[in-house]
Amino acid sequence: MEESIPNWLMQRAYLTPSRIGLVFREQSWTFAHMKECVFNFAGKLSSLSIAEGMRVGILMKNSPETIWAIHALQQLGAEIVFLNHRLTSEEITFQLEDSEASILIYHSDFNDIAHQIHGDYKGISIYSQVEIEQCTVKKFANVNEFQLKKTCSIMYTSGTTGKPKGVLQTYGNHWWSATGSALNLGLHSDDSWLCAVPLFHISGLSILMRSIIYGMPVYLMEQFDEQKANALLQSGKITIMSVVSAMLNRMLNLLNDEKYHENFRCMLLGGGAARLHQLEQCRDKGIPVFQTYGMTETSSQIVTLSPEDSLLKLGSAGKPLFPSQLKILTETDRNAVAGEAGEIIVKGPNVTQGYINRIEANDKAFVDGWFRTGDIGYVDKEGFLYVLDRRSDLIISGGENIYPAEIEEVILEMDEIKEAGVIGVEDAIWGKVPYAFIVSDRRLEEVDVLNYCRTKLAAYKLPKRVIQIEAIPRNGANKVMRRHLLQFIHE
Amino acid sequence: MEESIPNWLMQRAYLTPSRIGLVFREQSWTFAHMKECVFNFAGKLSSLSIAEGMRVGILMKNSPETIWAIHALQQLGAEIVFLNHRLTSEEITFQLEDSEASILIYHSDFNDIAHQIHGDYKGISIYSQVEIEQCTVKKFANVNEFQLKKTCSIMYTSGTTGKPKGVLQTYGNHWWSATGSALNLGLHSDDSWLCAVPLFHISGLSILMRSIIYGMPVYLMEQFDEQKANALLQSGKITIMSVVSAMLNRMLNLLNDEKYHENFRCMLLGGGAARLHQLEQCRDKGIPVFQTYGMTETSSQIVTLSPEDSLLKLGSAGKPLFPSQLKILTETDRNAVAGEAGEIIVKGPNVTQGYINRIEANDKAFVDGWFRTGDIGYVDKEGFLYVLDRRSDLIISGGENIYPAEIEEVILEMDEIKEAGVIGVEDAIWGKVPYAFIVSDRRLEEVDVLNYCRTKLAAYKLPKRVIQIEAIPRNGANKVMRRHLLQFIHE
Repeated sequence: MEESIPNWLMQRAYLTPSRIGLVFREQSWTFAHMKECVFNFAGKLSSLSIAEGMRVGILMKNSPETIWAIHALQQLGAEIVFLNHRLTSEEITFQLEDSEASILIYHSDFNDIAHQIHGDYKGISIYSQVEIEQCTVKKFANVNEFQLKKTCSIMYTSGTTGKPKGVLQTYGNHWWSATGSALNLGLHSDDSWLCAVPLFHISGLSILMRSIIYGMPVYLMEQFDEQKANALLQSGKITIMSVVSAMLNRMLNLLNDEKYHENFRCMLLGGGAARLHQLEQCRDKGIPVFQTYGMTETSSQIVTLSPEDSLLKLGSAGKPLFPSQLKILTETDRNAVAGEAGEIIVKGPNVTQGYINRIEANDKAFVDGWFRTGDIGYVDKEGFLYVLDRRSDLIISGGENIYPAEIEEVILEMDEIKEAGVIGVEDAIWGKVPYAFIVSDRRLEEVDVLNYCRTKLAAYKLPKRVIQIEAIPRNGANKVMRRHLLQFIHE
Repeated sequence: MEESIPNWLMQRAYLTPSRIGLVFREQSWTFAHMKECVFNFAGKLSSLSIAEGMRVGILMKNSPETIWAIHALQQLGAEIVFLNHRLTSEEITFQLEDSEASILIYHSDFNDIAHQIHGDYKGISIYSQVEIEQCTVKKFANVNEFQLKKTCSIMYTSGTTGKPKGVLQTYGNHWWSATGSALNLGLHSDDSWLCAVPLFHISGLSILMRSIIYGMPVYLMEQFDEQKANALLQSGKITIMSVVSAMLNRMLNLLNDEKYHENFRCMLLGGGAARLHQLEQCRDKGIPVFQTYGMTETSSQIVTLSPEDSLLKLGSAGKPLFPSQLKILTETDRNAVAGEAGEIIVKGPNVTQGYINRIEANDKAFVDGWFRTGDIGYVDKEGFLYVLDRRSDLIISGGENIYPAEIEEVILEMDEIKEAGVIGVEDAIWGKVPYAFIVSDRRLEEVDVLNYCRTKLAAYKLPKRVIQIEAIPRNGANKVMRRHLLQFIHE
């Protein structure tokens, strides 16, 4: 018998109807009120014939309506394809086609892009939020119980080669992630989580899932704003906030000598390696930063520092959450000894069951139930993880993942370019930014390359610089030696 | 793929080695130290050839060694048959034979009874704690991951008819119970749970499981002592305590006008219906009592009041834990409306998968994945459960379950007795105590009946009174109308 538990929103609205579940700008919603909004939205979606097992893309902003849409699709048993609205229409179309989504729901701000997508992918019907609001509510049979093995959400992530892959996240993945986090951070009746990260990323969606499972309010921000975030953390209303390094930087720069409220108990720092200097700065200011390590494939955190170790093990991402496991594999696939670096591999009920329709990628990624992250790190004698490097070629820029291969592929579409290599270069604001290196028989202008890329790539993926060189350094196996590209920057 | 998570004790000792896990008398153990003790014990058990899949009975007291034994058997993958040491050797022998246990571990205080069992059931090998301590530690391969569907423990419970049945409790049952409780009560870094209930009952074992899963100390008492319990609750060291009504009574009587420490946040009151007077008394004294409803088959609590409702809904057992569900069935198997009484049926991943080798009982107990508790209650408009009556014939006496059928069966073994009926009668100290009614052609002495029962029944099951009457009242279907027996008490 497959494990199932009651429909989360229904159960939460039944158990604690009058608790606050969402705060957005000046407005707040109890769980009972949220349920009403969600059921209203679901009734409208039902009139569009959205039903169990269908895949529905959402191209929306951080807003209450997006939350209604997410829960409404869960009520109907549809699988949600989360779309990053910073991508180009070409990139989004790929994800919708690849996941065989049949419907796209979008915010009116993304009207143009939605229509471009519709032009390119005839298999999809598109509806703006406004159009949905105008639908008549139709009666529907909501899902009574969530099967833990059933897919809840799909998020695309790129790899070292080829096209982005759709990560399947089940209800069970989200459940175990939420309860694993609670076992590490604890669960207080006054907890409230500030969500200033995008809901289309696992960092944001996981806050939403925790909110419903814990019975805890989410303070939702449409966009990250360091001034508002600081004010909230000083007000005593917030106990936990998820950040990436670039956000924390901006908050610290503005904070000066002021302090956060003593209610604030956890700054969960994910999305790329933290800088020791920043961690020391937080320690000196008494800001409780817990470094964490996770990815789309692990449904957010899988390794996190615990409260008691956060100061003792500065720079470490901590230990696995209780239901999860961690190992380091050397290049010869041997278990590393303490202190020895290798590939980080993980296992646990929060880890994805695989990528959509990617037999080969799945075969490569999973070994005996363990997931190969491709990231490099070591574990010290006491079992604490130190992440040395994300997948050697992954560029994390302001919390967004950028894959060199994706940019290289676009650049190589230009006839004049014979070879291309992309690497991440340190940047004071974004952590890292992409630099492109090109080889051509004739002299090319940087601006021409960038203009071409702009039509194909999300703005945050555009190389900060395009540098023409004689030849891309390669090893014996003809693989690009990305690290060797660094030398060309200052030539 | 079956869900599995890392071996709990191993993971806990890895994640938070230096946290205190157990306090007993003046001594305390960190989780790292506990792991050492457990592995030492497991090594000794291994020398007795205890291995994966075997069933091992334990007849032990509340003591650290019992905790080592429980965890050690989990390390070896053995299934633990928990034995109530207040039972007679005949009762225990039945449980060991029925569960096909091949080994019995016992405390030296139960030496005589263990040897009687060994005499009656040749299939069992018996070892005292002292004998085990003297064994040489043998290397063993400990279980790396706990399969959630695998049986962890077996506890016997009686029904309305027939012999006691072995309730199978899986690792998953315990896990979901522990996490469901944390989602309701919260989880604080300073939490510690006072265990003054027997470890061989689910109320005690579940505290042990929570301790390992939460990383929280258990304060273990060999026997309940109201004076020591009050002192601990006043010391600030304890935040949660599990009690039954009779224990709470004794604590309140001794407490007078004193107060518990403000750290103490939850008196979890289970094991039979609470008396409103007692709840009001606690409310007036500011003691945070949360009524709860559960049983061996639900691996402890399944319905519990939440902190925010504890004062508003005095007398209610609350709402289901997040992963669980509750319904009331009328006599015609219709879903009851709000306020309408009927049988309480429950569902959830903490509910047992069934009784050992009891096809018929399992068929009767489970309907479409729901478990029929046999208890009577109603749910109010807001979804709060009020338990009216435990299985109409169940007598809960000082937290122990007593089944009239069991006592009747013994009494009817006496040749002179033609009919027998047993009911529970209100008792100021124990909540309820059994009264027996007998029918015979000649006048029988109460003491003779009791002397016979004493050889067959645990002391706490002995009828407080044996009353001879003309005839047992029966309905048209010849079923004993137990309620009608009450009238004979004062005749």
